[in-house]
Amino acid sequence: MQTAAEQIALIERGTVDFHTREDLVKKLERSISTNTPMQIKAGFDPTAPDLHLGHTVLIQKLRHFQRLGHKVNFLIGDFTATIGDPTGKSETRPPLTREDVLRNAETYKDQVFKILDPEKTEIVFNSTWLNLLTPSEIIRLASQLTVARMLERDDFKKRFESNRPISVHEFLYPLIQGYDSVALKADVEVGGTDQLFNLLMGRDLQRSWGQEAQIVLTTPLLEGLDGVNKMSKSLGNYIGISESPDNIFGKLMSVSDVLMFRYYELLSDLSLAEIAELKQKVDTGAVHPKDAKVQLAKELVTRFHSAKDADAAQRNFEQVFARGELPEEIDEIELAVTDDTIWAPKLLHEAGLVKSSSEGRRMIEQQAVSVDGVKLSDVEAAIATSAPVLLQVGKRRFCRVSFSR
Amino acid sequence: MQTAAEQIALIERGTVDFHTREDLVKKLERSISTNTPMQIKAGFDPTAPDLHLGHTVLIQKLRHFQRLGHKVNFLIGDFTATIGDPTGKSETRPPLTREDVLRNAETYKDQVFKILDPEKTEIVFNSTWLNLLTPSEIIRLASQLTVARMLERDDFKKRFESNRPISVHEFLYPLIQGYDSVALKADVEVGGTDQLFNLLMGRDLQRSWGQEAQIVLTTPLLEGLDGVNKMSKSLGNYIGISESPDNIFGKLMSVSDVLMFRYYELLSDLSLAEIAELKQKVDTGAVHPKDAKVQLAKELVTRFHSAKDADAAQRNFEQVFARGELPEEIDEIELAVTDDTIWAPKLLHEAGLVKSSSEGRRMIEQQAVSVDGVKLSDVEAAIATSAPVLLQVGKRRFCRVSFSR
Repeated sequence: MQTAAEQIALIERGTVDFHTREDLVKKLERSISTNTPMQIKAGFDPTAPDLHLGHTVLIQKLRHFQRLGHKVNFLIGDFTATIGDPTGKSETRPPLTREDVLRNAETYKDQVFKILDPEKTEIVFNSTWLNLLTPSEIIRLASQLTVARMLERDDFKKRFESNRPISVHEFLYPLIQGYDSVALKADVEVGGTDQLFNLLMGRDLQRSWGQEAQIVLTTPLLEGLDGVNKMSKSLGNYIGISESPDNIFGKLMSVSDVLMFRYYELLSDLSLAEIAELKQKVDTGAVHPKDAKVQLAKELVTRFHSAKDADAAQRNFEQVFARGELPEEIDEIELAVTDDTIWAPKLLHEAGLVKSSSEGRRMIEQQAVSVDGVKLSDVEAAIATSAPVLLQVGKRRFCRVSFSR
Repeated sequence: MQTAAEQIALIERGTVDFHTREDLVKKLERSISTNTPMQIKAGFDPTAPDLHLGHTVLIQKLRHFQRLGHKVNFLIGDFTATIGDPTGKSETRPPLTREDVLRNAETYKDQVFKILDPEKTEIVFNSTWLNLLTPSEIIRLASQLTVARMLERDDFKKRFESNRPISVHEFLYPLIQGYDSVALKADVEVGGTDQLFNLLMGRDLQRSWGQEAQIVLTTPLLEGLDGVNKMSKSLGNYIGISESPDNIFGKLMSVSDVLMFRYYELLSDLSLAEIAELKQKVDTGAVHPKDAKVQLAKELVTRFHSAKDADAAQRNFEQVFARGELPEEIDEIELAVTDDTIWAPKLLHEAGLVKSSSEGRRMIEQQAVSVDGVKLSDVEAAIATSAPVLLQVGKRRFCRVSFSR
């Protein structure tokens, strides 16, 4: 086992909130002296997951704890899901059946075990203990916080101030998910920054229930391919971990150099020291940024698929771009847009690759246009403006387009 | 059974809020046509009761329903009592044991069965059904109301606006007591005006649970002996229903003529027509106000003790006052005070019955002073300034003193 100091260096890498270092030192020293792994908790929705790199920042943090010998409790919050969304409002969410929940849990496993060690992971369902709570225990739980404190939580505060309804039962959820920490006797809880209020609730409740308070860590939201907005499916600026090796590879090759190093910090298994060294080499010109990107892309394709897939993805990429004489330097332009998509022939024209939309249309019909290395065949294609694209017309004409609003 | 119209006349007597007459007509007509009594609900604290006339306004209303053939559910809210007050604040109320609750229930019976018909009364405990609620049922309950609506409740609103803490579990109580109406399938709930929010909650919850909404009636707060403040033990302006016949009789004889008719309306079994007739006779001088008071005092002593006790109390009263030549007209003065009590010799002086506090002290030492018909022997006696008092010095000197602040 590593020393407390060594462990803390890895644990705090890339975290945003950290409550508290002193408590962590104490827990780590006890863990080391008694040779007992810490219990790490992270909660997930019981809905069918389709994870992207943004989600894996947190899972990568759980992986850190596993590498240090600790035990991850992968908590699926099925308690509320199996009773349905009870707001009684127009869009009532139908309750998930037990079967749904178990099937969704399998989907999680397929995905997260690409990162987590199954041997050091326990999949747990909070309905297991929450369904056993007596009415008086729930009242006791609800008595732990004041209405005023609850309304300090950012989303509640905004809704309350703008007169949007908050149902009383929504006040129970932070308490209920805090109680999960009591039930698990969690030593550490990891979540996104938007979960900080709930995670700290776990600390308070554990103290009320006579337990030592858990350490709370939050991981940042990962920027999407555009380098600006958080990675999300609805913005289209994401890399899904179940995407094909070619897609993952190609999308990673398209990010900016700055974003590349952000991804290194939050997603790579390279140590911070190794990353700093690489960055220095890129800065001094000893390593070409493209090669640093290839290294990152291969690491992540290997993680989500295999080393063999990573090699193949690299070859495919080189074939399309390098062998197609992808120049070392490609023109980059920024295009001001107002819509979420842009008509492909128009985009080719605006990028200066063709003289008119009509010519753009003809080039597409002649199978001479690629977007991000993929041949375009539909002349009506709408290209998303949420992330930069690499356009190619014929063999030699390239342009990298980013979009601004 | 009486007609719906006849029943409504008695039911609405003296009520403040009434939701709604239309619903009540419907329920009464069904009750009459199916010959099924309505289920009446009223909730009470599980603490040891020591009821005064103020409490009996509501119980008298329950008695009205019994006289009309309906069934009273006398609900003892033991659910929260047996889990204790869970606010976790400095003054944590220790939980009542099951034994405490049952003993307190017996104390209730001793008192309320002086008014209610035991045959048409069911004593019920809400822990019976509330302890069986599942966590998801409680969440469902909590989902029925928004935080904003809850904060409209008068006491919550005041506390929230003045930054005094409200625990989240306090938001559950109105819902829980509303759920009692669902569990009882109550047709009518009766409570004090301060309970209106909770009572209406019962209506809403019954609808959500697919039941017909209960009728909600509130009864007013009874003015105490001072005719101004609500009757309460802490103000000292009350008549306890377990007090001696002489005390009840004497205190009732001390109230103002206006207050006497208020008591007639809210407490007497005389019909409103009979009361109106009596009032007219008093107004025209056909009946002396003192005799109307004797009639009320005898009715209430009979209710809480017996007709024999009432006769005896009247004789004792006449003996002390009338045979002691209590004049038909007694001087009345109003005394401005700042304290809760006043030193008896000083009071006698201020009332003009003696020339100085020293003389007052001597008269008390000579056993020549009575307060409300009771001989005073302690020269240091402190007389409460919360209610008017009738002072007597010697055989002939009388003064009725009321206090103002």
